[in-house]
Amino acid sequence: MTERPALLLDLDGTLTDSVYQHAIAWRKALELGGIKLSVWRIHRRIGMSGGLLAESLARETGRELSEKQARQVKQAHARLFKAQMRDVRLLPGAKELMQHLTKLKVPWAIATSGARISAQPLLKLVEPPDGVPIISRDDVEHAKPDPDLWIAAAARLGVSIESAIAVGDSVWDLLAARRARALGVGLLSGGYGQEELERAGAYRVYEDPADLLLHIDELGIRAA
Amino acid sequence: MTERPALLLDLDGTLTDSVYQHAIAWRKALELGGIKLSVWRIHRRIGMSGGLLAESLARETGRELSEKQARQVKQAHARLFKAQMRDVRLLPGAKELMQHLTKLKVPWAIATSGARISAQPLLKLVEPPDGVPIISRDDVEHAKPDPDLWIAAAARLGVSIESAIAVGDSVWDLLAARRARALGVGLLSGGYGQEELERAGAYRVYEDPADLLLHIDELGIRAA
Repeated sequence: MTERPALLLDLDGTLTDSVYQHAIAWRKALELGGIKLSVWRIHRRIGMSGGLLAESLARETGRELSEKQARQVKQAHARLFKAQMRDVRLLPGAKELMQHLTKLKVPWAIATSGARISAQPLLKLVEPPDGVPIISRDDVEHAKPDPDLWIAAAARLGVSIESAIAVGDSVWDLLAARRARALGVGLLSGGYGQEELERAGAYRVYEDPADLLLHIDELGIRAA
Repeated sequence: MTERPALLLDLDGTLTDSVYQHAIAWRKALELGGIKLSVWRIHRRIGMSGGLLAESLARETGRELSEKQARQVKQAHARLFKAQMRDVRLLPGAKELMQHLTKLKVPWAIATSGARISAQPLLKLVEPPDGVPIISRDDVEHAKPDPDLWIAAAARLGVSIESAIAVGDSVWDLLAARRARALGVGLLSGGYGQEELERAGAYRVYEDPADLLLHIDELGIRAA
């Protein structure tokens, strides 16, 4: 007999409509650090840990960042993103999906590559019910595309990762899901194309939380 | 004997790195008009005429806009985009591509779905040489995905549209190219996925103007 699937949810681009603001904040922060990059290239790295993102983009431009410079870029990004927070909204269906899962007593958690401090204002928007585990960058050694975040989320719920469904909007969420041996589900709400998410191993791709909720039977999510 | 191909270039996302700022400006403008939409849905409409964009998004949310409301939303977008202009940069290779075409005496033009007034600050960044035709929303009855803009650009160059290559970053550029019977070339620099552009009929897809320039022989662009 298989376990009931638990749902592990990414935060940026999966529950909150915040990916484009992140991309623009990173572009400015990187430019302040002397790294000139187009927004689309940055967009395609959102969802990675901030450290990996800054490093991989620095490598792409052939410009090494010292530890201090990387920290400054990350700090500038946090500041520039915060300045745009008032334009960030919940994605359609985010509230309803969370309520549905809670009502059905499906075990669920939030796992984000962001640091707890930058996730905080987004979580205020999301308002997850008490008791829902929130796993952030600070709780694991490596963020996505490493599997640690999804694995830590399943562990906190006390479910096996092999029975869990990891939902995210980026290629990194899905690669991390495969490495964790969870089932990956993609959402278009982060701005990736459907085929990009499918090629990264998505079991299914939905538009946003509202569309996932509409098709939740496809994931075998049901009342206990 | 075939004619030498002329190159018709889109502006936003093709020469300038301005798509993400447009998407965020439209999100805010639409919200001011009472239409709540996720940024990714708006992103996927950038490159359409502003009128079509506002209308199609209003239809998607089941909310009709009066002519006055549509005009107000467009004005709010123009204002909000302008406020972000100082963060807009040229895309890598844009200058070099234009210089190369001019040096080779390849006929080329710029054709944008934007109104002349909103294209103006971007053109200041692009600095096209004198004599390069600039076709904007104001010059045609219908913007992309209608074929009018590409057709008008070819006409202004005095070349046949069937021999022209239309370069753009959005699905709408490529659909308009097919309707015009031009060859469409896609760029990833507007943030679409490669497969989305291929499925819209792109003959080739490059990363950005720099990557196009690197592979320009694939397009049969050569000195006279």
